[in-house]
Amino acid sequence: MGSYGTMSKPVIKVAALCGSLRKASFNGGLIRAAIELSKEQITGLHVEFIDTSSLPMLNTDLEDNGRFPAEVEEFRQKILEADCCFFASPDYNYSVTPLLKNALDWGSRPPNVWAGKAAAVVSACGGGGRAQYHLRQIGVFLDLHFINKPEYYLNAFQPPVKFNGDGDLIDSDARERLKQVLLSLQAFTLRIQGKS
Amino acid sequence: MGSYGTMSKPVIKVAALCGSLRKASFNGGLIRAAIELSKEQITGLHVEFIDTSSLPMLNTDLEDNGRFPAEVEEFRQKILEADCCFFASPDYNYSVTPLLKNALDWGSRPPNVWAGKAAAVVSACGGGGRAQYHLRQIGVFLDLHFINKPEYYLNAFQPPVKFNGDGDLIDSDARERLKQVLLSLQAFTLRIQGKS
Amino acid sequence: MGSYGTMSKPVIKVAALCGSLRKASFNGGLIRAAIELSKEQITGLHVEFIDTSSLPMLNTDLEDNGRFPAEVEEFRQKILEADCCFFASPDYNYSVTPLLKNALDWGSRPPNVWAGKAAAVVSACGGGGRAQYHLRQIGVFLDLHFINKPEYYLNAFQPPVKFNGDGDLIDSDARERLKQVLLSLQAFTLRIQGKS
Amino acid sequence: MGSYGTMSKPVIKVAALCGSLRKASFNGGLIRAAIELSKEQITGLHVEFIDTSSLPMLNTDLEDNGRFPAEVEEFRQKILEADCCFFASPDYNYSVTPLLKNALDWGSRPPNVWAGKAAAVVSACGGGGRAQYHLRQIGVFLDLHFINKPEYYLNAFQPPVKFNGDGDLIDSDARERLKQVLLSLQAFTLRIQGKS
Repeated sequence: MGSYGTMSKPVIKVAALCGSLRKASFNGGLIRAAIELSKEQITGLHVEFIDTSSLPMLNTDLEDNGRFPAEVEEFRQKILEADCCFFASPDYNYSVTPLLKNALDWGSRPPNVWAGKAAAVVSACGGGGRAQYHLRQIGVFLDLHFINKPEYYLNAFQPPVKFNGDGDLIDSDARERLKQVLLSLQAFTLRIQGKS
Repeated sequence: MGSYGTMSKPVIKVAALCGSLRKASFNGGLIRAAIELSKEQITGLHVEFIDTSSLPMLNTDLEDNGRFPAEVEEFRQKILEADCCFFASPDYNYSVTPLLKNALDWGSRPPNVWAGKAAAVVSACGGGGRAQYHLRQIGVFLDLHFINKPEYYLNAFQPPVKFNGDGDLIDSDARERLKQVLLSLQAFTLRIQGKS
Repeated sequence: MGSYGTMSKPVIKVAALCGSLRKASFNGGLIRAAIELSKEQITGLHVEFIDTSSLPMLNTDLEDNGRFPAEVEEFRQKILEADCCFFASPDYNYSVTPLLKNALDWGSRPPNVWAGKAAAVVSACGGGGRAQYHLRQIGVFLDLHFINKPEYYLNAFQPPVKFNGDGDLIDSDARERLKQVLLSLQAFTLRIQGKS
Repeated sequence: MGSYGTMSKPVIKVAALCGSLRKASFNGGLIRAAIELSKEQITGLHVEFIDTSSLPMLNTDLEDNGRFPAEVEEFRQKILEADCCFFASPDYNYSVTPLLKNALDWGSRPPNVWAGKAAAVVSACGGGGRAQYHLRQIGVFLDLHFINKPEYYLNAFQPPVKFNGDGDLIDSDARERLKQVLLSLQAFTLRIQGKS
């Protein structure tokens, strides 16, 4: 992961988590767009979608002497291997979704796998993205370092059309702004890791 | 302020939700204590524990023309029948638990079953109860009216011992303070309902 | 203040506080509109603007044996005499303004003059009204009971024109929505006071 | 990584702001202790108290073609010259004080003088330090990068005695923990600046 002795930036591994389970989720669309953008237009950034849909609802009774259920172990390992995190977080009733909170909480069990990583959050929603501030407060305890700018709230219901029927992000301005988030996350991750 | 036309207060039905799945959960202990206290020491208050452990993780793809999965329908019906809500909410990483958020979100699906109800929140935790402020913000959208006072954070790890090995609340001061929460919730529910 | 023995609703006294000192403040415009609307279209609601611009910056060293500086005493008395509060709160850097926080804090000094009152908050701003959630959290400690609905964020910069050059609210839809806030505040105040 | 070309760490300039005006303020005591600790025990960290008591209450009508009142200009210049910020923030009614909010808001006026700086917040209070989370949310818009750990809430009223009658921090454990905050701020500032 380090770049010592080379001229090129290291490849930053991004774990992308989605707050929604809906098949045609707009937030899932943001993650797919992030994967495409990083492949096509950003050097040194590899975004991988981490599926959290099979994690059991958090219950520490399921832990056995520091061992977690298999799905949880696998999930935690993927976060550990990532350099930073990218959350696509809808706003459910002014806070994060249970799906996303569940993943955050499993990852926080000792040893906390989020510790020290950089992070970014984006939202496709109808409202004001209040969930992002709850996520950022959660991040204080998890020891996640969120980028401040640019903030990204995409009002999915305002014209022009942002997503097609499959939930793919088709608006070019929204894609360009999403690219700026990824570039900011990349730069901040390098700083946090002392590699900038 | 009289109960116009009758001499007795109406019986207030309280739906009690727990944020934790742990068998020996301290927050589960707070609910058991609330049920005991209301039976033994409070006239006109009936507290019922509403189990939310079998609700599927929220996914609106599971809705079918406004119909919900059977467990969700049953859960929503119980909330609808209650006059007010009592949340025992641990603090997971400075916010509410996925279990509790999941129940809140299923209940919010149109038509929102929480609308207009009074509510109270209590927490047994090691820290400062930050989750309660997230829950209160969620309550703005859900249209829940939380009591302001007394706030109830029980530091479960400070002496004297608050809970026994089964998670039962055994500290008499903590029980008395819990009773004050229930009395405040009862009085506020009557006001909100225009029955005080 | 009571209505016992009469057929008509009591007149509800509303203390209106503005978060901005700007002469042509949009939030000041919301308060002027609220005063007009209550005079012309709402029976039983009297809105009075409470000027907080001469309060000294909060410093409890200025208190003398429970006595406050003269401007503070006068301010506190006005809040005490009100039945409920109406806050016009711009969003300064995602939170309430220092002017508004200063008034809230002076009023909270023992004995807390806000205790038990109903409240509403409206915002004219360019963003998403995040300050309102900070104000609501502050209200938990102050023991203010905020209405949940309708929430009122007026994007002052989106067409059609909302305010004229003097900061007067001229958009009829925005005025109608403001009236709904006042009616909701009136109804909720009566409930909180046990008079509905 | 590495202070290119020199053997020694650069000296980090810390702007220290206090949320309280009280003469014997505990939070003022935290700042005095931070100044002492940085002088005596930390190489490469210079903490300076920035007095904000003479700033006028924020009112953008006081701005004249991008010029600010003299006290504001001077304040903004001091923040600009600092590498990072250290906030001693009491909890007034679950949020930051008007004094601190006023300084934050004056600094945010374009061009925002806080942008890109690292920051830390400490609190001496009786409660749970909820103000810190409001400050952190404000920091998102201001583009401040807060350290996550260690969080520092000093319950000033729990034994053993933490402060003497002048508000000086005399508890050795509390001083040691404060030193850890300063070291964390120093290290994070270097990373944010790309100098670690």
